Amino acid sequence: MSDQMSRITLARRPEGAPVQDDFKLETGALPEPGKGEVLIEVTHLSLDPYMRGRMDDAKSYAESLEIGDTMTGQGVGRVLKSNADDFAEGDTVTGMTGWASHATLPASVLRKLDGSVPASTALGVLGMPGLTGWVGLHKYGNPKAGETLVVGAATGPVGSMVGQLAKSLGLRTVAIAGGEEKCRIATETFGFDAAIDHHAHDDAKSLRAAIAEAAPDGVDIYWENVAGQLIEAVLPLMNVHGRIPICGMVAWYGGDNIAEENQLPAMWRSILVNRLQVTGFIIFDHWDEFPEFLADVGPKVEAGEISYLEDVAEGLENAPEAFIAMLKGGNMGKQVVKL
Amino acid sequence: MSDQMSRITLARRPEGAPVQDDFKLETGALPEPGKGEVLIEVTHLSLDPYMRGRMDDAKSYAESLEIGDTMTGQGVGRVLKSNADDFAEGDTVTGMTGWASHATLPASVLRKLDGSVPASTALGVLGMPGLTGWVGLHKYGNPKAGETLVVGAATGPVGSMVGQLAKSLGLRTVAIAGGEEKCRIATETFGFDAAIDHHAHDDAKSLRAAIAEAAPDGVDIYWENVAGQLIEAVLPLMNVHGRIPICGMVAWYGGDNIAEENQLPAMWRSILVNRLQVTGFIIFDHWDEFPEFLADVGPKVEAGEISYLEDVAEGLENAPEAFIAMLKGGNMGKQVVKL
Repeated sequence: MSDQMSRITLARRPEGAPVQDDFKLETGALPEPGKGEVLIEVTHLSLDPYMRGRMDDAKSYAESLEIGDTMTGQGVGRVLKSNADDFAEGDTVTGMTGWASHATLPASVLRKLDGSVPASTALGVLGMPGLTGWVGLHKYGNPKAGETLVVGAATGPVGSMVGQLAKSLGLRTVAIAGGEEKCRIATETFGFDAAIDHHAHDDAKSLRAAIAEAAPDGVDIYWENVAGQLIEAVLPLMNVHGRIPICGMVAWYGGDNIAEENQLPAMWRSILVNRLQVTGFIIFDHWDEFPEFLADVGPKVEAGEISYLEDVAEGLENAPEAFIAMLKGGNMGKQVVKL
Repeated sequence: MSDQMSRITLARRPEGAPVQDDFKLETGALPEPGKGEVLIEVTHLSLDPYMRGRMDDAKSYAESLEIGDTMTGQGVGRVLKSNADDFAEGDTVTGMTGWASHATLPASVLRKLDGSVPASTALGVLGMPGLTGWVGLHKYGNPKAGETLVVGAATGPVGSMVGQLAKSLGLRTVAIAGGEEKCRIATETFGFDAAIDHHAHDDAKSLRAAIAEAAPDGVDIYWENVAGQLIEAVLPLMNVHGRIPICGMVAWYGGDNIAEENQLPAMWRSILVNRLQVTGFIIFDHWDEFPEFLADVGPKVEAGEISYLEDVAEGLENAPEAFIAMLKGGNMGKQVVKL
């Protein structure tokens, strides 16, 4: 057991899309767990789009990172040393370890994993992204059998959860994904009724025509992960009393891909005329529903009724590269880093 | 009793704000009521912003008017002749008479008024606009005591209903209105805690500063009647879990007053970060709640606990002028035409 640890810190704030120099790999002495704390050796680290927001110095739903802070993130790992009654050396746990090889955390913010499914699922299909899809679809999507759902980033951990749940509830599900391979996975692995490759469409109009063909009865739920050209394409296809849960807007996170024309009046008109319900939600408001989610979805994942896909980068030092690529859609499924 | 009737028709589709030549006064023979129908002499006609939408040849929540059609509208009047069991000569009734001196309508779409309050209230505080404020606030505003509500067009029949109901539920109410006189009426007649004259502010930033001062705890409910510069001003003041019921967007109805910058990304970000709920609604979906509304609000209007204000134009021939002025905010309270 090494007495050193490494971590990735925020070196500077990105301008638009993050680049390698926005991150720094630092090493230091292994920390000692305090009273009630646990020392964890991280085996898997989660990379998620929300982390991009933390790098900015702007009001968001969570505190910004300061320059020099360890990048925020959830990890899975083994307990090396425990000063807490509920945890013992060798336990597999998950918690907000940050982008680091090791972390000391209070036992109260850790959750023990039972080994029934691979530990890394706690970062994806049975973790925050899975909960996001499950809570958001049921609470803000109000899905009804026979309706049509469209979701972007459809092979990601949120999109694939939303699609599979909607399908199991009897909705027609239309995936938007980047590239033929992702489209194949959307239909074959995640059971979408149709998948549209947005790389094959130059503008919103062309994308809209493809969605219209895949959603002949219009769109009842547009799950917003992406924004940008996709919302422009979908908006005129929304049915009366449609719902738009806003979960993310990755196309706009860097401040680019913003159309010149003011699209708000058209959106407002559509919300009014079609009586749409647009709801923003943040999963951090819904942690109390995690046990119910796990009780519902856990057995389905174990039984193979809900599929998941992981894209595994190797080594903490490669986390920035994987993160940068993920924001550009370079990942195939839930992005994790194996340490 | 004259054997002639007059009506106002759509002469052509307006470009932007309607002008006199978009309307035509026509006369013709008095119609005969058919079986089950009633002939009504209209005494009061309602003018409402939604009528602007009917003049366009665009998909909206209701059919467009054709050129030559009588302008749509609700009226109040006296029964001149009845071929229906439930109505007798001399009854006071309300229904969709259109902009006309007389109308024949099936008894099934008429409602008898009992004379407990002035008949014209059936067009405003106890009619469609009142129901709109009542349904929308309770269903989509989710008001809670101690919260703050901001509403534009605050002395209009919807805004004044929303403000008074919210105030009675223990909310702080902030009126936005055009001109000092309307602001005085907002606070004195309708009990708003504060009123802001948008004419006194040149841009969204200045308007925002005034609203921020009147709403020191931020805005929990922004009732959208207006859009344009007002939503731009209010958006950054919205509190977490705020609600925006979209009832109208009169500033944008003519397609003007649209900012050059694309405001959708900022709106999307605000909905996401602040977990807002934005809901469009159309009162035509809620007619079944009319009896409940009337049972709740009717006695309060009769008792003077809910105030209303009417702006009365005289003569059918002056309806277009009053309508044109109303769309520009020229009315003081619910606009009706007395025939």
